[in-house]
Amino acid sequence: MENLSVIKIGGNIIDDDTNLSSFIKKFASINGKKILVHGGGKLATKLASQLEIPQQLVDGRRITDADTLKIVTMVYAGYINKNIVAQLQSLGCNSMGLTGVDGNAIQAHKRTNPQIDYGFVGDIDAINVSLFQNLLAQDITIVVAPITHDKNGQLLNTNADTIAQELAKGLANHYDVSLIYSFEKPGVLLDANNNETVISSITPVYYNELKNKNLVFAGMLPKLDNAFAALNSGVKKVIIGQAEHLDELVSGNAGTTIINE
Amino acid sequence: MENLSVIKIGGNIIDDDTNLSSFIKKFASINGKKILVHGGGKLATKLASQLEIPQQLVDGRRITDADTLKIVTMVYAGYINKNIVAQLQSLGCNSMGLTGVDGNAIQAHKRTNPQIDYGFVGDIDAINVSLFQNLLAQDITIVVAPITHDKNGQLLNTNADTIAQELAKGLANHYDVSLIYSFEKPGVLLDANNNETVISSITPVYYNELKNKNLVFAGMLPKLDNAFAALNSGVKKVIIGQAEHLDELVSGNAGTTIINE
Repeated sequence: MENLSVIKIGGNIIDDDTNLSSFIKKFASINGKKILVHGGGKLATKLASQLEIPQQLVDGRRITDADTLKIVTMVYAGYINKNIVAQLQSLGCNSMGLTGVDGNAIQAHKRTNPQIDYGFVGDIDAINVSLFQNLLAQDITIVVAPITHDKNGQLLNTNADTIAQELAKGLANHYDVSLIYSFEKPGVLLDANNNETVISSITPVYYNELKNKNLVFAGMLPKLDNAFAALNSGVKKVIIGQAEHLDELVSGNAGTTIINE
Repeated sequence: MENLSVIKIGGNIIDDDTNLSSFIKKFASINGKKILVHGGGKLATKLASQLEIPQQLVDGRRITDADTLKIVTMVYAGYINKNIVAQLQSLGCNSMGLTGVDGNAIQAHKRTNPQIDYGFVGDIDAINVSLFQNLLAQDITIVVAPITHDKNGQLLNTNADTIAQELAKGLANHYDVSLIYSFEKPGVLLDANNNETVISSITPVYYNELKNKNLVFAGMLPKLDNAFAALNSGVKKVIIGQAEHLDELVSGNAGTTIINE
């Protein structure tokens, strides 16, 4: 099977034009089929504030009300997505920006929670595998904005990490998928305060050992649990590291690689 | 060759949710392959005003400065495009929203004019015919937002009428293309003040006759000249009429049909 890299970049890169351009150059030069999933960054929050749309937070989580959904649709699917694609095109990387509604790429349902109404937030039901296959077969690099839909006309704000994971899992039967999460740290650290302590590789056995010794700090637990869930669904490897070193992450020379030994 | 309808809707429909929903239902029920090109409407102007971005007009034409380009990219490619696609998906019409940058669908260059700098406005150079063919072959209806790019990383605001015309011409070698312009009048009128005087069909001979008798009012001249240019490039027919009667326009029972006899 052909290789496919599914790469997620977070807001901290998107918020800085220089960092974003540098990341896009590295992304464009990755060999093989690839999908980029981008988050939002601070632009949506800034626009909401300029338009005096109050941000509702419940337990530290933003509620996506109708006005906020409008903002994130404009910023994520419009501004950020099209500017990334324009830069990729200028580098000779033929790319296409999609949200979950386009070609019914990612179908979701509005999150139901007995305690909290998160608003127009989507939990993913299905990936349109044949759509992605067809575009990738035409050597089109796909750039996904974190907006999905419920097939009843409702757009839904959806977590970009989850989109990347579901795409990786959904396409694992057809490609050798590497799922790469870029974040602010150089990888999974043995000592959360020391960037020199990157763990280069984590297997299930080693993960249990780390957990038993309380060596995984709390914030990493859901990320690692998700990584192993992806591996159990057929994804070949999950790599976690800094976007600034994307080329080395892809080649396995930086970050933390999580593998099912 | 298969039929293809290329349909342009203007801002007056987009600005009204009820009219837009009604139009989308009619559009979804059109048989055969189809492309929808949408304009912008008043939402971009409203957002610019809320953000206190002054609109520069020169000779009544809006100048697309960097801030305005950002607004139209958010509104056209984000909000309007994705909401139209979401509604089409809810009606079982599998559709995909694209701008010119996506898959390099429509390449353009920044307009150069010795007198006026229109800003980030694009004049079209090329349509990526094989991209459209491939998507249409998958029975995907394409919804185009009026944003193009210059292949050097620059997005460009581009007239939706022109995009519809260039798409129709570019695809005329591969489909029997009908180009349908919806606007606020029921068609080309013999008497501009009487909506009952729609001319049902105009051939080149009849067009010359109308012009010689000064029966074509000034605003229609460029539209009709463009229509005949499209026909001369292989488009089968051009239909001009009211969006509210889209189904009848497509079936030839309303509006004005322009044909090369």
